[in-house]
Amino acid sequence: MTDKKLSGAGLRGQSAGETALSTVGKSGSGLTYRGYDVKDLAEHVSFEEVAYLILYGELPNVAQLAAYRKKLKGLRGLPQALKEVLERIPASSHPMDVMRTGCSMLGNLEPEKDFSEQQDVADRLLGAFPSIICYWYRFSHDGVRIETETDDEQIGAHFLHLLHGKKPAPLHARVMDVSLILYAEHEFNASTFTARVCASTLSDMFSCITGAIGSLRGPLHGGANEAAMELIQNMRDEEDARATLLGKLERKEKIMGFGHAIYRESDPRNAIIKGWSEKLSKEVGDERLYKVSVACEELMWQEKKLFCNADFFHASAYHYMGIPTKLFTPIFVCSRLTGWAAHVMEQRSNNRIIRPSADYVGVAPREVPPIEQR
Amino acid sequence: MTDKKLSGAGLRGQSAGETALSTVGKSGSGLTYRGYDVKDLAEHVSFEEVAYLILYGELPNVAQLAAYRKKLKGLRGLPQALKEVLERIPASSHPMDVMRTGCSMLGNLEPEKDFSEQQDVADRLLGAFPSIICYWYRFSHDGVRIETETDDEQIGAHFLHLLHGKKPAPLHARVMDVSLILYAEHEFNASTFTARVCASTLSDMFSCITGAIGSLRGPLHGGANEAAMELIQNMRDEEDARATLLGKLERKEKIMGFGHAIYRESDPRNAIIKGWSEKLSKEVGDERLYKVSVACEELMWQEKKLFCNADFFHASAYHYMGIPTKLFTPIFVCSRLTGWAAHVMEQRSNNRIIRPSADYVGVAPREVPPIEQR
Repeated sequence: MTDKKLSGAGLRGQSAGETALSTVGKSGSGLTYRGYDVKDLAEHVSFEEVAYLILYGELPNVAQLAAYRKKLKGLRGLPQALKEVLERIPASSHPMDVMRTGCSMLGNLEPEKDFSEQQDVADRLLGAFPSIICYWYRFSHDGVRIETETDDEQIGAHFLHLLHGKKPAPLHARVMDVSLILYAEHEFNASTFTARVCASTLSDMFSCITGAIGSLRGPLHGGANEAAMELIQNMRDEEDARATLLGKLERKEKIMGFGHAIYRESDPRNAIIKGWSEKLSKEVGDERLYKVSVACEELMWQEKKLFCNADFFHASAYHYMGIPTKLFTPIFVCSRLTGWAAHVMEQRSNNRIIRPSADYVGVAPREVPPIEQR
Repeated sequence: MTDKKLSGAGLRGQSAGETALSTVGKSGSGLTYRGYDVKDLAEHVSFEEVAYLILYGELPNVAQLAAYRKKLKGLRGLPQALKEVLERIPASSHPMDVMRTGCSMLGNLEPEKDFSEQQDVADRLLGAFPSIICYWYRFSHDGVRIETETDDEQIGAHFLHLLHGKKPAPLHARVMDVSLILYAEHEFNASTFTARVCASTLSDMFSCITGAIGSLRGPLHGGANEAAMELIQNMRDEEDARATLLGKLERKEKIMGFGHAIYRESDPRNAIIKGWSEKLSKEVGDERLYKVSVACEELMWQEKKLFCNADFFHASAYHYMGIPTKLFTPIFVCSRLTGWAAHVMEQRSNNRIIRPSADYVGVAPREVPPIEQR
């Protein structure tokens, strides 16, 4: 690794613009959405309230929330042409490729004709994304064409309903709701920054979100909760967990779900999802995954002073709710969409095309040799 | 505009990394690909040589070029499922949405399983992109399912062949070849930077290119040659051109095809495509578009000291070859793909996730009010 020039790489610590949407890692509060601490939000409100907050600027009152939920419920259906596209994507495809393609295809069928439609497009995607991923999943894996419209009031419950074909238990619905809150927004992370670079060319919302999905797909970004699941799924007990991790540390293998690009001491989302994972483990009556996760957390702190990020206990929580590992990152999409879309709107409101420079490290000027002399 | 904070916005002038692929605006030479001046390349080599140079590092010799052209020719066919997706995209869709969706769908059908396949994926897209856009265009507009494999040796000629259903005249084939060379690579422009941000999460090549297409779609970026065509198409003669532009300048309307984010005095690509546009105007026997373009160029320099960028004379050149205006930007994709893919590979070779910071300008920390009190 010593030959790599990494100082200042990745624009780390450099400001790439302004935002009023969130703070990450400010003292006293690890993560705020429009001034509200994510812990407060996860405790007191629902995901639809958070989406409204992020997309429209303020928490909704009773009437606004009811109207917003009704609007989103009405946006769960998929056009026939989009279903036919999803039916042509193999079961073996990466689910994030499905999300990316589904979003892009919808942009052909229901284009954002001008920026006055941006709020409606964001809401449409909020309504449609669970339908897109679950329609493809159930068709390609189970051979059924599901009805994508349910009467669930909330997006989290709706997702579980589409996936399992029945209304979820209240605890599961609430955990999904909290999970969507925790993942909704996180300042200039790589996928959000992708959306803003795209938005800075004044491209359409579907292009921005499609690009963001592609970035979230990367294993250094959105794939961490899936990687955490792969890590813990075969650990038999706490002792096995410790031995496995010590072996990986010894071999200097990358361990996903720990540490963070911005946070230095802890991830404020971890304690929240950890608490819900514990509740789920008791309800399901299978505490192994939760206990090995706790053992991993303790060992990583003891050995490397590394803390669990938002992704680590999401792995066990999602698993307890019967969610296939490969759908973990698409759920992230259904949530982060709110942050992405709000950043696109913010970029548009005060735009300059994002066009940095590069340091040239290539060959000096030279003349084109005739092909016979190459 | 005075209330906008634009100083330092858009990362202008800030280095976001290193590249060995090109220089833009360095003294003595306006644009180089791996050390070669774009003027030299446009005069002496073919687009396939430039693609090979950009993607593989050096200009090919005779045997390498023959092998490369043969390989690319073999990659023009589309999977049946992709054709069926393209057939479900309406004729009214934005052709860049078609490109974005076609690229994304191909990523489901022929995924990049690991980075050892990156060169092959880039070549596959080079072969497939003209097929994707022309298959959709001819099906949606003319109701025909074209055979996407032709025996043309070169990508430019192949594109015109698919579009018009017959082999192009040698002059047209050569102009397309030059045009593809001029658009192939341009350092950290917004679409390329999008591809690099996506690549920095270690996502797959299809995600990176899909995201880049979405960014190039924006009217501040790839749409400029289409906007230039819309500007000139109704100008009756040089006098009308001058009057039209003076009116626009008077009304402070945005005029596309002039000026550049990096270049300050001229765009080195302009003289090249301008020369070919003049040749085409004489061959076609209709000099109006060329002459009004020259009148625009002279007036914009005289009035605003603004020069034509690469896009302006591309409008008349493409029009003379019978290319519908809405396909101008997709041609840009077929070319710039080479730069995008090479930047993705370069980012992967020395990666750190691109995750800048933001200046917070939102509300101060606050407590969540109960919904009844909002």
